[in-house]
Amino acid sequence: MKNFSFQIPTQIIFGSGTLEQLNTISLPGKKAMIITGGTSVQKYGYLDQVYKILKYRNIDHVLYDKVVPNPIRKNVMEARDIAREKKCDFFIGLGGGSSIDTAKSVAMMMTNPGDLWDYVPVGQGGKKDFTQKGFPLIAIPTTAGTGTEGNPTSVITNEITGEKVGIRCEFPIISIVDPDLTININPRYTTYQGFDALFHNIEAFISQKANPFSDLLALEGVRLIFENLPEAVRNGKNIEARSAVSWAATLGGMVLCLASATSAHVIEHSLSGIDPTVIHGEGLIMISKAFHQLGAERIPELYSKLAFAIGMGDSKKTVQENAKAFLDALEALKIACGVGGLNLSDHGFTEDDIDRIAEGAYVIGGGALTRDQYKITDQDLKEILRNSMHA
Amino acid sequence: MKNFSFQIPTQIIFGSGTLEQLNTISLPGKKAMIITGGTSVQKYGYLDQVYKILKYRNIDHVLYDKVVPNPIRKNVMEARDIAREKKCDFFIGLGGGSSIDTAKSVAMMMTNPGDLWDYVPVGQGGKKDFTQKGFPLIAIPTTAGTGTEGNPTSVITNEITGEKVGIRCEFPIISIVDPDLTININPRYTTYQGFDALFHNIEAFISQKANPFSDLLALEGVRLIFENLPEAVRNGKNIEARSAVSWAATLGGMVLCLASATSAHVIEHSLSGIDPTVIHGEGLIMISKAFHQLGAERIPELYSKLAFAIGMGDSKKTVQENAKAFLDALEALKIACGVGGLNLSDHGFTEDDIDRIAEGAYVIGGGALTRDQYKITDQDLKEILRNSMHA
Repeated sequence: MKNFSFQIPTQIIFGSGTLEQLNTISLPGKKAMIITGGTSVQKYGYLDQVYKILKYRNIDHVLYDKVVPNPIRKNVMEARDIAREKKCDFFIGLGGGSSIDTAKSVAMMMTNPGDLWDYVPVGQGGKKDFTQKGFPLIAIPTTAGTGTEGNPTSVITNEITGEKVGIRCEFPIISIVDPDLTININPRYTTYQGFDALFHNIEAFISQKANPFSDLLALEGVRLIFENLPEAVRNGKNIEARSAVSWAATLGGMVLCLASATSAHVIEHSLSGIDPTVIHGEGLIMISKAFHQLGAERIPELYSKLAFAIGMGDSKKTVQENAKAFLDALEALKIACGVGGLNLSDHGFTEDDIDRIAEGAYVIGGGALTRDQYKITDQDLKEILRNSMHA
Repeated sequence: MKNFSFQIPTQIIFGSGTLEQLNTISLPGKKAMIITGGTSVQKYGYLDQVYKILKYRNIDHVLYDKVVPNPIRKNVMEARDIAREKKCDFFIGLGGGSSIDTAKSVAMMMTNPGDLWDYVPVGQGGKKDFTQKGFPLIAIPTTAGTGTEGNPTSVITNEITGEKVGIRCEFPIISIVDPDLTININPRYTTYQGFDALFHNIEAFISQKANPFSDLLALEGVRLIFENLPEAVRNGKNIEARSAVSWAATLGGMVLCLASATSAHVIEHSLSGIDPTVIHGEGLIMISKAFHQLGAERIPELYSKLAFAIGMGDSKKTVQENAKAFLDALEALKIACGVGGLNLSDHGFTEDDIDRIAEGAYVIGGGALTRDQYKITDQDLKEILRNSMHA
């Protein structure tokens, strides 16, 4: 049995209607900055719900709603300046991963000097450690995908250098995961976000840092996505399906810090760094067939276990056959969610882009792609990209 | 899907040889009080290992080694007085549940005024809340049973009133769960402790507060005990089996706070309160056949799921048949661990004691036994005790 260590200090409040618990939980300050991307949280009334509760609780607030889909360094520093000027003493990240990730970085920059990029551990980052504890953050996700509510990582893009990296900040002190906030997400985005959650769980399971605790959570996340994502896509108002996908996403966020993502995530960050119109989950789907085909060849016993986790394993078959059954189920899941055959050429990538995408992956990966249980060579990486050009 | 909320802030360091990590982790103070029961931690050199590391790290220490098997209030207050006088600023609980539970209560009483019993929520307790944060505690279990390393509860007996109760203190800040420290436990105690861990997991699964997260961890704990406890009992040096049982025990500790124990634990606390020679795990074993027989009648669908978790479920059978398969497996596990047929008469209890045991359970349960998914009536309780008199 492998040694491992974990700590997830966040209080996670999960379930339909739990946003209302903002009324009763102990709040970590007197003046909140609400950080969000704006449009959908306004349109569907989530922001008003939060306003109303804060007013009822006599908590002053400032709104920062300029967060963009691939959140940028500049907005972190801007929100930080406003929060300092307005003397905010805690943050509420309300929205998708970009809002919460921005809030995580802002919370750290309230107390740590210099620029956010000083604390980036790879590429042109300053490779410094945060020395000061950040301000407290309450995360309220309105998507079911990134799982950022369950870990300390903030994924931010440097709008000058083009680097998209994960920065280790602090865990939210409280995460309110209310699946009701996801029912208005359209089928396409439900799919992209749901597959992001799926891949967090799959990748954690096949990562080098996988361990008995991360495996337990990750396999449950995989099972829940396979059983519920197609229904959440078809019938967005089905709160049971939405809840299962939200919980799988939170599990996926937790396993990212209990274990880690793998090269697939690094490759995708390079893709969406080069072409910001590539949505993260979409990018992951585009490379997933080739990536997991390689994985099923190299570590079939783990892919076989994935097959058993989703009820597709057969103890009379070989591990290779079971691994293949999982790959087939993955392709079937894509078709069930309307993204069968999605590939890099759909975004205009060609074989001429392979070197550039690979280069980006090396920079983001800090010089190497090293979190997989087998060595992904330069040749492997380029083969994955080549095989992802067409479905 | 049921709503739930959880927070387990402890850093859990798990695995064979991890005691050595005490060398490198960040320590929460400059002067430790080591709280332990004494004999076995000395005999097997665990205490010396801790001394050596503290010396190497220039951390001063005081030893308090008077903890008794069912730890008592008096020792908590005595250790607290010494720790204050010697100006200790953190605690190391080294030993079984009694050592760590004593340390949890001492850590709280460093900062909270009055007597420990002022903070007991039931019976003759003062029913006050702790208002001050306790001192930091590092838990180092040397048994695989209570799981106290994974929750904030401290079970203490009042030597004057005879009450044995759970007091909600704080989580250890760090728990080092090194299965190497359990290899010298004899078969009998390995069994008692292992069954305690098993029942934490089973009870959490059938408790009212059960939820998707606690169920995930609890069923894994149940599975691990069924697969590994007999081998850990037969061959105590088998570190794989020991590790699996230790991890199941930690999971069991976590699910006690993610969900809860049930009436079985309350009944047992009454038993060992009346007869302190009854070891906690032993008491649980003695009432388990009757208790779970009733459960399998009232909530067969949950017992059926337990059967599936241990690989004894058969989808062609009824839930009642599968529930029965689990009960049979539980009796077989007892036999495999050398405690088949253990019952209340083995400790000299007779039917004349039933009212007294029930009365104790009511007092400890705070007036009622209410954590089960079905109502345990007075008649049920007495029937469980009557049926537990003989195997």
